Amino acid sequence: MTVAVPSAVHANGHGPGLKKDPQPAAQVASASASPEDEKVVINTIRCLAADLCQEYKGGHPGTVMGAATIAIALWKYHMRYNPSNPDWFARDRFVLSAGHACLLQYIMLHLTGYEAWPLSEVRKYHAPKYGMAAGHPEIEFPGIEVTTGPLGQGIANAVGLAVAGKNLGATYNREGYPVVDGKVWCFTGDGCLQEGVGQEAVSMAGHWGLDNLVLIYDNNSVTVDGVIANCFTDDTSAKLAATGWRVIDVYDGSNDLAAVVSALGEAKEVVGKPVLINIRTVIGIGSKHAGKGQAHGQALGEDDVANVKKSLGFNPSEKFVVPNQVYEYFSDRKARGVQLEKEWNSLMAEYSARYPEESAELRARMEGKLPGWESLVPPKKDLPTAAQPTRKSSGIMVQALAPKYKSFMIGSADLLESTFVSWDGMVEFQNPESGLGDYAGRQIRYGIREHAMVAMGNGLAAYHKGMILPVMSTFFMFWLYAAPAARMSALQKLRFIGIATHDSIGIGEDGPTHQPVALASFYRALPGLNFVRPADAEEVIGAWMLALQDEDHPSLFALSRQPVPLLPGSDRAGVARGGYVVHGDPSIIPDITLLATGAEVSRAIEVAKLLSTPSSSSSTYTVRVVSLPYLALFDRQSAEYRRGVIPSSQSLVVAIEAWASFGWSRYAHAGAHMHTFGLSAPQQVLYEHFGFGVQNLAEKIGGWAESRKAENGGWNIPGVGEYEELLLSTIQEH
Amino acid sequence: MTVAVPSAVHANGHGPGLKKDPQPAAQVASASASPEDEKVVINTIRCLAADLCQEYKGGHPGTVMGAATIAIALWKYHMRYNPSNPDWFARDRFVLSAGHACLLQYIMLHLTGYEAWPLSEVRKYHAPKYGMAAGHPEIEFPGIEVTTGPLGQGIANAVGLAVAGKNLGATYNREGYPVVDGKVWCFTGDGCLQEGVGQEAVSMAGHWGLDNLVLIYDNNSVTVDGVIANCFTDDTSAKLAATGWRVIDVYDGSNDLAAVVSALGEAKEVVGKPVLINIRTVIGIGSKHAGKGQAHGQALGEDDVANVKKSLGFNPSEKFVVPNQVYEYFSDRKARGVQLEKEWNSLMAEYSARYPEESAELRARMEGKLPGWESLVPPKKDLPTAAQPTRKSSGIMVQALAPKYKSFMIGSADLLESTFVSWDGMVEFQNPESGLGDYAGRQIRYGIREHAMVAMGNGLAAYHKGMILPVMSTFFMFWLYAAPAARMSALQKLRFIGIATHDSIGIGEDGPTHQPVALASFYRALPGLNFVRPADAEEVIGAWMLALQDEDHPSLFALSRQPVPLLPGSDRAGVARGGYVVHGDPSIIPDITLLATGAEVSRAIEVAKLLSTPSSSSSTYTVRVVSLPYLALFDRQSAEYRRGVIPSSQSLVVAIEAWASFGWSRYAHAGAHMHTFGLSAPQQVLYEHFGFGVQNLAEKIGGWAESRKAENGGWNIPGVGEYEELLLSTIQEH
Repeated sequence: MTVAVPSAVHANGHGPGLKKDPQPAAQVASASASPEDEKVVINTIRCLAADLCQEYKGGHPGTVMGAATIAIALWKYHMRYNPSNPDWFARDRFVLSAGHACLLQYIMLHLTGYEAWPLSEVRKYHAPKYGMAAGHPEIEFPGIEVTTGPLGQGIANAVGLAVAGKNLGATYNREGYPVVDGKVWCFTGDGCLQEGVGQEAVSMAGHWGLDNLVLIYDNNSVTVDGVIANCFTDDTSAKLAATGWRVIDVYDGSNDLAAVVSALGEAKEVVGKPVLINIRTVIGIGSKHAGKGQAHGQALGEDDVANVKKSLGFNPSEKFVVPNQVYEYFSDRKARGVQLEKEWNSLMAEYSARYPEESAELRARMEGKLPGWESLVPPKKDLPTAAQPTRKSSGIMVQALAPKYKSFMIGSADLLESTFVSWDGMVEFQNPESGLGDYAGRQIRYGIREHAMVAMGNGLAAYHKGMILPVMSTFFMFWLYAAPAARMSALQKLRFIGIATHDSIGIGEDGPTHQPVALASFYRALPGLNFVRPADAEEVIGAWMLALQDEDHPSLFALSRQPVPLLPGSDRAGVARGGYVVHGDPSIIPDITLLATGAEVSRAIEVAKLLSTPSSSSSTYTVRVVSLPYLALFDRQSAEYRRGVIPSSQSLVVAIEAWASFGWSRYAHAGAHMHTFGLSAPQQVLYEHFGFGVQNLAEKIGGWAESRKAENGGWNIPGVGEYEELLLSTIQEH
Repeated sequence: MTVAVPSAVHANGHGPGLKKDPQPAAQVASASASPEDEKVVINTIRCLAADLCQEYKGGHPGTVMGAATIAIALWKYHMRYNPSNPDWFARDRFVLSAGHACLLQYIMLHLTGYEAWPLSEVRKYHAPKYGMAAGHPEIEFPGIEVTTGPLGQGIANAVGLAVAGKNLGATYNREGYPVVDGKVWCFTGDGCLQEGVGQEAVSMAGHWGLDNLVLIYDNNSVTVDGVIANCFTDDTSAKLAATGWRVIDVYDGSNDLAAVVSALGEAKEVVGKPVLINIRTVIGIGSKHAGKGQAHGQALGEDDVANVKKSLGFNPSEKFVVPNQVYEYFSDRKARGVQLEKEWNSLMAEYSARYPEESAELRARMEGKLPGWESLVPPKKDLPTAAQPTRKSSGIMVQALAPKYKSFMIGSADLLESTFVSWDGMVEFQNPESGLGDYAGRQIRYGIREHAMVAMGNGLAAYHKGMILPVMSTFFMFWLYAAPAARMSALQKLRFIGIATHDSIGIGEDGPTHQPVALASFYRALPGLNFVRPADAEEVIGAWMLALQDEDHPSLFALSRQPVPLLPGSDRAGVARGGYVVHGDPSIIPDITLLATGAEVSRAIEVAKLLSTPSSSSSTYTVRVVSLPYLALFDRQSAEYRRGVIPSSQSLVVAIEAWASFGWSRYAHAGAHMHTFGLSAPQQVLYEHFGFGVQNLAEKIGGWAESRKAENGGWNIPGVGEYEELLLSTIQEH
């Protein structure tokens, strides 16, 4: 083929400002490939997809077949990468938002010479054994930037990657030295564009004018359930144009490779806007199901696979055939990758000589560490002693760290002030033309888009491990909107620090729509995420320390709207063990052990004081209060430690938390919890209304303890299966 | 004022086809109100909003002040409603998607004469006691159609309400008898349009051409964090036009009442498309914070409230002033409401005479029941005995009920076949012009928009209690995308039946992105939602029966992708109690009690058989298996019943479930659970890999039981705080 690569500027792997300009490798290679030769390449990809799905009778063949041209345009002509070093820092990033089309990526990683991806590995797709060729691309494998599959996430990840690239470029690039200059290519189908998270991210990218982002829309008009016209009739090109995108249309994408290659080249030249390339393709082209839903998510069947091969000029009796000319066709990309990296290394060497400070900082950030952060953490004695909301205490750490470390990109879904994530001297991440900030800014205004915020955060975190630490905030309730993305963070071991404020009925007047009751149960059960509900400023510091120490997991802090006192017994070291005795003599086995979290800890201490104060009307008890800011971490402590903190075989254990009781039976015999949704009223009124008044709690707990007194003077300790909900009647009266 | 109401067709409260056409009430009334008089009305609303927020120093004054003209255009000129009968069936529906602007609605309900809303009730806004004037509008109070607050939900609710109206109209209206003909008016700010769920719903409404829907965009350019240009630069008018909407622009909405009234009138005339009215307003107009973020979410302060009053011609020293002329201005709406209802009653009387069958059916559906459904439920003996996935078993009920009851509107987020929600003879709900179905169709193709699906379902359910029963399906994992809307269903007591298939690692090759681990913990903790995980076809029937009996709560069924056998001991009556003995002699206290749910129940029975089979290498135990399809319902049974089913003080209790262990400690001493995310491989491989192989489970459980043997021949029953994770080591090896 003799596709004219429309511009050599990026096709040779260089950003606009690079000084060297060797003969474009793509043109050299393509000059030797005739259209017929390229047909063979295209059809090889298609037959491979058909074979790979047929082998174990499952998977998604159709998209791969329809989009083979797009793959070639990317991996042969336009993307900057080095197969010998998949993690080369200056590579372009590719995100397969339509994750079910993963075979497209696996096949290309194989054909372009990634060592980790021999054909034998690709052939593990849907095999009765797990391997790298998973049903959706997974971040831990070479050549995969992010794990995708849940639709829409990938687009948002790509926007996050593009923000990362823009931010790093604006921070470190200098005239003639575009050391951070990669493009982000995102491949999407209809599904990701229907999903709200995709739409949110699209709107953000347009707002920011991210011209390092190219969204390639494989517009094949087909979905699992049939023709897309069933459910999706947006004019996507017009819609994205209205959102600040440049749009390029391609009308015969499955056949017209030259048009696809040209469109991608044109996209690279666009300045000031992200680009949508809307490419009409035919799903399952070559199959009898071409253009139909059946080609989407199942093997084509033996007969049809044979048809495909016949119609594409392949031998139906042979499987997994890759003609040598196909490997040859891509063979230049390996050398070119090495060359690109070499050129970049030279550029970096010159840059280091000329800009030693910037260069040192950039290289230090590539290490992914935050050197010396520990020294910036205030000791307990320096914390405010007056009662203040834990959300405000969290702001102490933002203020301490954000100005010092450019790694922090901190933003909010339109609740910057209420979540205390602003800091002195912050500059917004904005298109400089807006006059509101610039691309080197690190304070991100995500708008009212919680889901995309966290999904974009995954892109920020995935750009280069540890180089950017996204801190994101909204009310805890709206972390439910963001939950699918936060789950993807945990699954991918991508770190973020999540600020979840106004975490209970303590939000007050906003009412039940804004008062989480069940949400903590999800985050507590989620593997790989640190969910911490600190009791006061000291525990907030402990939560931040835990998050800063843990490079491989996201953390989410549930914080109070209402003020809480600094507790005499609070201890950051206790947070690091998940739970500890915050009130009472730890050497004495108490009559009653109260467990609590967050804003309920100070309340539990008041209850403990009441219960231990001699009075004429009720018994007096020895009471301990245990703060359990991070339940799953407490679970991971030794049995000895846990029993020491919660002596549940000798003491009556009562949990106090203004959330659902689910999960507390692990350590408590009884509990005071929320059994319904909340109400709209001031927080003090609500705590009383739902039974969490100190006096009421003391009465309920004291009364219950009375009922558990054993004849021998000890306690009838309840067993498993006998959890007592102490506030259930209160609530049923409501 | 002498606003020319652009058309009398709807302004007089009639749909296009109504035969009677009395003098339009709005024109009569407006003829008597001068522009100066209307200024007083507008300013009264503004001053009330300022006063109401100032009284308890909280709330959202700015939007109400800026949008007072919109409120007048709606409540005075265009909306069809009857203050004396807020639930009048044929009313227009109003949805305040920007729920924080609830004062706008409360004030209008008061001014137009809703008895439940005296000024004293409105004044409870943010008062230190809960009342009807909640911080966000709540469905249980007269005049409120749906609870809103979490942004974006309201738009999707409105789309659902419009679908309901279209469907009922297409089903029951006859030439000259538009008995179901109301409009749906939705008031939105920027936030709802940024949220993905709002965008998803907007796309659906355009696709369906819902011309009974008018979205009024209060475009005030301001958000909590300041100017909207910080984060949102979409051209919303162009964007919605690209999505199939008609767009009407108003440029001076806070001042030009005539233009607003005219735009709403024009919107009512549009045929074939939903309408966006993009109205530029000034938030907090009259305040010194006019047009600024400070006017959004806080009281203005005493001084500024005084300023507002002075600038609007009110006495700064008086509060909560409603001049009599304001009540007079709206006074016609009460009479008009009665008149509208009377006219509709006449229309219905004529309709009943001419179309007795349709009329009887419509009236029956207004009762909100499904008479005789019980007789359609197959007995256990008629269920398929061959193993089949529980998702397929659920299809039995869809097929049994959907053809018979027009109340069922059943749809899927692009997984119609895999979730078994199709039925013979189904017709799609589609714009008839598409050729794909018609508005009387009841099978809804939601596209890949899980969140909007469930939020729209809330609109379907809220149209008129029980008249429509939405059944919605997607993979269980994507019920996380939909979770914020499902929570709103539970909060509002809106029934849906949710089909959540492919519910665990049993989905196999799709991999960890599609394998829920923690999600059930959220739905189990959520108040007011029936979360059921049935073990086989019989339990699936039980789950459906439970959902059909419960008119006030949504239900969600977690169903298997993989086949499970019909269990000899399974029992729908057991499902109705949350849990029951499914295997083993219930009269014998067993050595070991296994608890399981869903696809793991048949596995647990195999384990029980192994453990109770004499072998040379290990001890033999008596084993019972308890199926616990609905944990929270089991919690609500009597202690006697619970102890009878799970004798946890005498028997070793082990839970087996391929989800996170969170919550199981309530009944079990030990458990086999997932401690990480899943993997991509065939389901059988994954069950083995993660330790759920029958042989492995038997060994682990038997070994653990061995360790708990007491010297006296009984058991050392573990206490609270000693939960044993039997598969933790297996997983840590991974």
